[in-house]
Amino acid sequence: MSEHDTSKSPSAFRTAEPDYRWQGVECRPYKEDDRALFKAVTRQVLFSDQNLAGELRYFEVAPGGFSTLERHAHVHGVMIFRGAGHCLVGDEVRAVGERDLVSIPPMTWHQFRATGASPLGFLCLVDAVRDRPQLPTADDLAALEADPAIAAFLRGAPAPAG
Amino acid sequence: MSEHDTSKSPSAFRTAEPDYRWQGVECRPYKEDDRALFKAVTRQVLFSDQNLAGELRYFEVAPGGFSTLERHAHVHGVMIFRGAGHCLVGDEVRAVGERDLVSIPPMTWHQFRATGASPLGFLCLVDAVRDRPQLPTADDLAALEADPAIAAFLRGAPAPAG
Repeated sequence: MSEHDTSKSPSAFRTAEPDYRWQGVECRPYKEDDRALFKAVTRQVLFSDQNLAGELRYFEVAPGGFSTLERHAHVHGVMIFRGAGHCLVGDEVRAVGERDLVSIPPMTWHQFRATGASPLGFLCLVDAVRDRPQLPTADDLAALEADPAIAAFLRGAPAPAG
Repeated sequence: MSEHDTSKSPSAFRTAEPDYRWQGVECRPYKEDDRALFKAVTRQVLFSDQNLAGELRYFEVAPGGFSTLERHAHVHGVMIFRGAGHCLVGDEVRAVGERDLVSIPPMTWHQFRATGASPLGFLCLVDAVRDRPQLPTADDLAALEADPAIAAFLRGAPAPAG
Protein backbone atom coordinates (compact mmCIF):
# COMPACT_ATOMS: atom_id res chain seq x y z
CA MET A 1 0.00 0.00 0.00
CA SER A 2 2.67 2.50 0.91
CA GLU A 3 6.03 2.64 -0.78
CA HIS A 4 7.47 0.92 2.29
CA ASP A 5 5.56 -2.29 1.62
CA THR A 6 7.43 -3.05 -1.56
CA SER A 7 10.70 -3.24 0.32
CA LYS A 8 9.56 -4.67 3.63
CA SER A 9 12.31 -7.20 4.04
CA PRO A 10 15.26 -4.88 3.37
CA SER A 11 13.90 -2.24 5.71
CA ALA A 12 12.78 -4.52 8.54
CA PHE A 13 16.32 -5.47 9.54
CA ARG A 14 19.26 -3.10 9.66
CA THR A 15 22.45 -4.60 10.95
CA ALA A 16 24.79 -2.91 13.39
CA GLU A 17 28.10 -1.95 11.80
CA PRO A 18 31.42 -1.24 13.48
CA ASP A 19 31.96 1.98 15.39
CA TYR A 20 28.33 2.65 16.21
CA ARG A 21 27.08 2.92 12.66
CA TRP A 22 24.09 1.13 11.19
CA GLN A 23 23.38 -0.37 7.79
CA GLY A 24 21.36 2.04 5.67
CA VAL A 25 21.48 4.85 8.24
CA GLU A 26 23.10 8.06 7.10
CA CYS A 27 25.63 9.53 9.54
CA ARG A 28 25.25 13.28 9.37
CA PRO A 29 27.91 15.55 10.77
CA TYR A 30 26.53 18.74 12.21
CA LYS A 31 27.54 21.75 10.20
CA GLU A 32 30.10 24.06 11.68
CA ASP A 33 28.58 26.56 14.03
CA ASP A 34 29.89 30.12 14.08
CA ARG A 35 28.73 30.72 17.61
CA ALA A 36 30.36 27.52 18.87
CA LEU A 37 27.05 26.35 20.37
CA PHE A 38 27.93 22.82 19.34
CA LYS A 39 31.08 20.99 18.27
CA ALA A 40 32.03 17.59 16.85
CA VAL A 41 28.59 15.97 16.86
CA THR A 42 27.17 13.43 14.44
CA ARG A 43 23.56 12.35 14.14
CA GLN A 44 22.00 9.11 12.92
CA VAL A 45 18.23 8.75 12.71
CA LEU A 46 17.52 5.16 13.76
CA PHE A 47 13.72 5.21 13.63
CA SER A 48 11.61 7.77 11.81
CA ASP A 49 8.46 6.38 10.25
CA GLN A 50 5.17 7.83 9.10
CA ASN A 51 3.49 5.31 11.42
CA LEU A 52 5.46 6.36 14.50
CA ALA A 53 4.70 9.44 16.60
CA GLY A 54 8.20 9.35 18.05
CA GLU A 55 11.68 9.22 16.59
CA LEU A 56 14.82 7.62 17.93
CA ARG A 57 18.13 9.20 17.03
CA TYR A 58 21.73 8.40 17.96
CA PHE A 59 24.04 11.32 18.58
CA GLU A 60 27.73 10.98 19.11
CA VAL A 61 30.01 13.67 20.47
CA ALA A 62 33.76 13.29 19.91
CA PRO A 63 36.09 13.89 22.87
CA GLY A 64 36.08 17.61 23.66
CA GLY A 65 32.90 18.13 21.69
CA PHE A 66 29.42 19.09 22.80
CA SER A 67 25.83 19.05 21.61
CA THR A 68 23.87 22.23 20.96
CA LEU A 69 23.06 24.33 24.00
CA GLU A 70 19.34 24.82 23.47
CA ARG A 71 15.83 24.69 24.86
CA HIS A 72 12.42 23.98 23.36
CA ALA A 73 8.86 23.09 24.30
CA HIS A 74 9.26 19.46 23.29
CA VAL A 75 10.96 17.04 25.63
CA HIS A 76 13.77 14.55 25.16
CA GLY A 77 14.21 11.11 26.61
CA VAL A 78 17.94 10.37 26.51
CA MET A 79 19.90 7.22 27.25
CA ILE A 80 23.69 7.38 27.35
CA PHE A 81 24.74 4.65 24.95
CA ARG A 82 28.50 4.89 24.60
CA GLY A 83 31.25 6.27 26.77
CA ALA A 84 30.80 8.97 29.36
CA GLY A 85 30.67 12.70 29.80
CA HIS A 86 28.68 15.41 31.50
CA CYS A 87 25.36 17.01 30.83
CA LEU A 88 23.54 20.17 31.80
CA VAL A 89 19.80 20.02 32.44
CA GLY A 90 18.35 23.30 33.69
CA ASP A 91 20.55 24.36 36.57
CA GLU A 92 22.08 20.94 37.17
CA VAL A 93 25.38 19.53 35.86
CA ARG A 94 25.86 15.77 36.14
CA ALA A 95 28.42 13.19 35.19
CA VAL A 96 26.76 10.53 33.04
CA GLY A 97 27.80 7.09 31.85
CA GLU A 98 26.49 4.19 29.85
CA ARG A 99 22.79 3.38 30.20
CA ASP A 100 22.05 6.38 32.42
CA LEU A 101 18.70 8.00 31.61
CA VAL A 102 18.22 11.76 31.29
CA SER A 103 14.83 13.46 30.88
CA ILE A 104 14.88 16.95 29.42
CA PRO A 105 11.74 18.83 30.51
CA PRO A 106 10.09 21.52 28.36
CA MET A 107 11.92 24.84 27.93
CA THR A 108 14.96 23.69 29.84
CA TRP A 109 18.50 24.53 28.74
CA HIS A 110 20.48 21.38 28.07
CA GLN A 111 23.78 20.27 26.62
CA PHE A 112 25.82 17.05 26.49
CA ARG A 113 29.62 17.19 26.59
CA ALA A 114 32.25 14.52 25.96
CA THR A 115 34.48 15.70 28.77
CA GLY A 116 36.72 12.64 28.93
CA ALA A 117 38.91 10.70 26.53
CA SER A 118 36.01 8.70 25.09
CA PRO A 119 33.25 9.67 22.69
CA LEU A 120 29.88 10.32 24.29
CA GLY A 121 27.07 8.60 22.39
CA PHE A 122 23.43 8.84 23.36
CA LEU A 123 20.03 7.75 22.13
CA CYS A 124 17.40 10.48 22.03
CA LEU A 125 13.65 9.87 21.94
CA VAL A 126 11.72 12.83 20.57
CA ASP A 127 8.32 13.56 19.04
CA ALA A 128 8.27 13.51 15.25
CA VAL A 129 6.29 16.78 15.32
CA ARG A 130 8.09 19.32 17.46
CA ASP A 131 8.97 22.98 17.83
CA ARG A 132 12.28 24.46 16.72
CA PRO A 133 15.00 24.70 19.36
CA GLN A 134 15.77 28.10 20.82
CA LEU A 135 19.42 29.10 21.10
CA PRO A 136 20.64 31.17 24.03
CA THR A 137 20.96 34.92 23.70
CA ALA A 138 23.96 36.68 25.21
CA ASP A 139 21.77 37.44 28.22
CA ASP A 140 20.75 33.80 28.54
CA LEU A 141 24.40 32.75 28.47
CA ALA A 142 25.32 35.34 31.07
CA ALA A 143 22.53 34.08 33.31
CA LEU A 144 23.73 30.49 32.94
CA GLU A 145 27.36 31.45 33.56
CA ALA A 146 26.43 33.23 36.77
CA ASP A 147 26.31 29.73 38.27
CA PRO A 148 29.93 28.61 38.82
CA ALA A 149 29.13 24.95 38.16
CA ILE A 150 27.41 25.77 34.88
CA ALA A 151 30.19 28.18 33.88
CA ALA A 152 32.77 25.44 34.45
CA PHE A 153 30.68 22.98 32.46
CA LEU A 154 30.36 25.43 29.56
CA ARG A 155 34.14 25.90 29.59
CA GLY A 156 34.45 22.14 29.16
CA ALA A 157 35.85 21.68 32.66
CA PRO A 158 33.04 20.54 34.93
CA ALA A 159 33.90 20.28 38.59
CA PRO A 160 34.47 16.73 39.84
CA ALA A 161 31.50 15.26 41.68
CA GLY A 162 31.76 16.30 45.32
CA MET B 1 3.31 24.19 36.51
CA SER B 2 2.75 20.47 36.29
CA GLU B 3 3.34 18.12 39.16
CA HIS B 4 6.60 17.11 37.51
CA ASP B 5 8.15 20.53 38.05
CA THR B 6 8.27 20.16 41.79
CA SER B 7 10.55 17.15 41.50
CA LYS B 8 12.48 18.04 38.39
CA SER B 9 15.90 17.15 39.68
CA PRO B 10 15.11 13.67 41.00
CA SER B 11 13.31 12.71 37.82
CA ALA B 12 15.71 14.27 35.29
CA PHE B 13 18.49 11.77 36.03
CA ARG B 14 18.02 8.05 36.56
CA THR B 15 21.20 6.11 36.98
CA ALA B 16 21.93 2.77 35.38
CA GLU B 17 22.08 -0.06 37.90
CA PRO B 18 23.71 -3.46 37.58
CA ASP B 19 22.18 -6.15 35.40
CA TYR B 20 20.28 -3.82 33.07
CA ARG B 21 18.10 -2.22 35.68
CA TRP B 22 17.53 1.48 36.21
CA GLN B 23 17.04 3.63 39.27
CA GLY B 24 13.36 4.30 39.85
CA VAL B 25 12.21 2.04 37.02
CA GLU B 26 9.97 -0.84 37.99
CA CYS B 27 10.93 -4.19 36.50
CA ARG B 28 7.72 -6.01 35.70
CA PRO B 29 7.72 -9.70 35.01
CA TYR B 30 5.13 -10.75 32.51
CA LYS B 31 2.44 -12.86 34.04
CA GLU B 32 2.40 -16.51 33.22
CA ASP B 33 0.63 -17.25 30.00
CA ASP B 34 -1.56 -20.34 29.71
CA ARG B 35 -1.20 -20.52 25.97
CA ALA B 36 2.60 -20.23 26.17
CA LEU B 37 2.59 -17.30 23.78
CA PHE B 38 5.40 -15.73 25.80
CA LYS B 39 7.88 -16.94 28.40
CA ALA B 40 10.44 -15.46 30.78
CA VAL B 41 10.12 -11.81 29.75
CA THR B 42 10.51 -8.71 31.89
CA ARG B 43 9.56 -5.15 30.95
CA GLN B 44 10.93 -1.82 32.13
CA VAL B 45 9.37 1.43 30.89
CA LEU B 46 12.29 3.83 30.45
CA PHE B 47 10.43 6.83 29.05
CA SER B 48 6.69 7.42 29.29
CA ASP B 49 5.72 11.05 29.73
CA GLN B 50 2.58 13.08 29.13
CA ASN B 51 4.73 15.35 26.94
CA LEU B 52 6.01 12.52 24.75
CA ALA B 53 4.05 10.91 21.92
CA GLY B 54 6.33 7.88 22.03
CA GLU B 55 7.47 5.51 24.74
CA LEU B 56 10.73 3.65 25.13
CA ARG B 57 10.68 0.31 26.91
CA TYR B 58 13.34 -2.27 27.67
CA PHE B 59 12.35 -5.91 27.40
CA GLU B 60 14.55 -8.75 28.47
CA VAL B 61 14.04 -12.37 27.58
CA ALA B 62 15.85 -15.01 29.64
CA PRO B 63 17.64 -17.83 27.79
CA GLY B 64 15.02 -20.12 26.29
CA GLY B 65 12.32 -17.46 26.67
CA PHE B 66 10.38 -15.50 24.09
CA SER B 67 8.28 -12.39 23.74
CA THR B 68 4.60 -12.52 22.87
CA LEU B 69 3.77 -13.72 19.38
CA GLU B 70 1.43 -10.94 18.28
CA ARG B 71 0.46 -8.39 15.67
CA HIS B 72 -1.18 -4.98 15.82
CA ALA B 73 -1.76 -1.84 13.77
CA HIS B 74 0.90 0.14 15.61
CA VAL B 75 4.53 -0.32 14.70
CA HIS B 76 7.62 -1.03 16.78
CA GLY B 77 11.13 0.28 16.39
CA VAL B 78 13.41 -2.22 18.12
CA MET B 79 17.11 -2.12 18.90
CA ILE B 80 18.78 -5.23 20.27
CA PHE B 81 20.48 -4.00 23.42
CA ARG B 82 21.91 -7.02 25.15
CA GLY B 83 22.95 -10.46 24.02
CA ALA B 84 21.64 -12.18 20.95
CA GLY B 85 18.80 -14.32 19.69
CA HIS B 86 16.40 -14.67 16.81
CA CYS B 87 13.32 -12.80 15.75
CA LEU B 88 10.37 -13.38 13.49
CA VAL B 89 8.99 -10.47 11.48
CA GLY B 90 6.22 -11.46 9.08
CA ASP B 91 7.56 -14.43 7.15
CA GLU B 92 11.20 -13.80 7.96
CA VAL B 93 13.33 -15.32 10.73
CA ARG B 94 16.63 -13.62 11.48
CA ALA B 95 19.48 -13.97 13.90
CA VAL B 96 19.98 -10.67 15.73
CA GLY B 97 22.70 -9.28 17.94
CA GLU B 98 23.60 -6.15 19.84
CA ARG B 99 22.66 -2.84 18.22
CA ASP B 100 20.82 -4.44 15.32
CA LEU B 101 17.66 -2.56 14.36
CA VAL B 102 14.34 -4.26 13.65
CA SER B 103 11.25 -2.46 12.32
CA ILE B 104 7.93 -4.19 12.90
CA PRO B 105 5.41 -3.01 10.27
CA PRO B 106 1.66 -2.78 10.96
CA MET B 107 -0.28 -6.04 11.36
CA THR B 108 2.81 -8.20 11.09
CA TRP B 109 3.35 -11.25 13.30
CA HIS B 110 6.51 -10.86 15.35
CA GLN B 111 8.34 -12.52 18.19
CA PHE B 112 11.78 -12.29 19.82
CA ARG B 113 13.49 -15.37 21.20
CA ALA B 114 16.58 -15.80 23.36
CA THR B 115 17.80 -18.84 21.48
CA GLY B 116 21.33 -18.88 22.89
CA ALA B 117 22.92 -19.00 26.31
CA SER B 118 22.60 -15.24 26.89
CA PRO B 119 19.57 -13.12 27.72
CA LEU B 120 18.14 -11.17 24.82
CA GLY B 121 17.44 -7.55 25.78
CA PHE B 122 15.93 -5.03 23.43
CA LEU B 123 14.73 -1.44 23.41
CA CYS B 124 11.30 -0.89 21.88
CA LEU B 125 9.99 2.44 20.61
CA VAL B 126 6.22 2.57 20.43
CA ASP B 127 3.45 5.17 20.27
CA ALA B 128 1.96 6.03 23.66
CA VAL B 129 -1.52 5.72 22.11
CA ARG B 130 -1.83 2.38 20.36
CA ASP B 131 -4.17 -0.48 19.60
CA ARG B 132 -4.26 -3.71 21.58
CA PRO B 133 -2.13 -6.56 20.26
CA GLN B 134 -3.88 -9.44 18.55
CA LEU B 135 -2.89 -12.97 19.52
CA PRO B 136 -2.79 -15.75 16.95
CA THR B 137 -5.72 -18.09 16.56
CA ALA B 138 -5.13 -21.77 16.01
CA ASP B 139 -5.54 -21.12 12.30
CA ASP B 140 -3.01 -18.29 12.39
CA LEU B 141 -0.53 -20.58 14.12
CA ALA B 142 -1.11 -23.33 11.60
CA ALA B 143 -0.53 -20.89 8.76
CA LEU B 144 2.72 -19.70 10.35
CA GLU B 145 3.92 -23.23 11.03
CA ALA B 146 3.35 -24.19 7.40
CA ASP B 147 6.65 -22.43 6.75
CA PRO B 148 9.44 -24.78 7.96
CA ALA B 149 11.72 -21.90 9.01
CA ILE B 150 8.96 -20.32 11.07
CA ALA B 151 7.96 -23.68 12.54
CA ALA B 152 11.56 -24.28 13.64
CA PHE B 153 11.72 -20.79 15.13
CA LEU B 154 8.49 -21.33 17.06
CA ARG B 155 9.91 -24.59 18.41
CA GLY B 156 12.86 -22.58 19.73
CA ALA B 157 15.26 -24.17 17.28
CA PRO B 158 15.74 -21.77 14.38
CA ALA B 159 17.80 -23.10 11.50
CA PRO B 160 21.37 -21.79 11.37
CA ALA B 161 21.89 -18.98 8.88
CA GLY B 162 22.63 -20.52 5.51
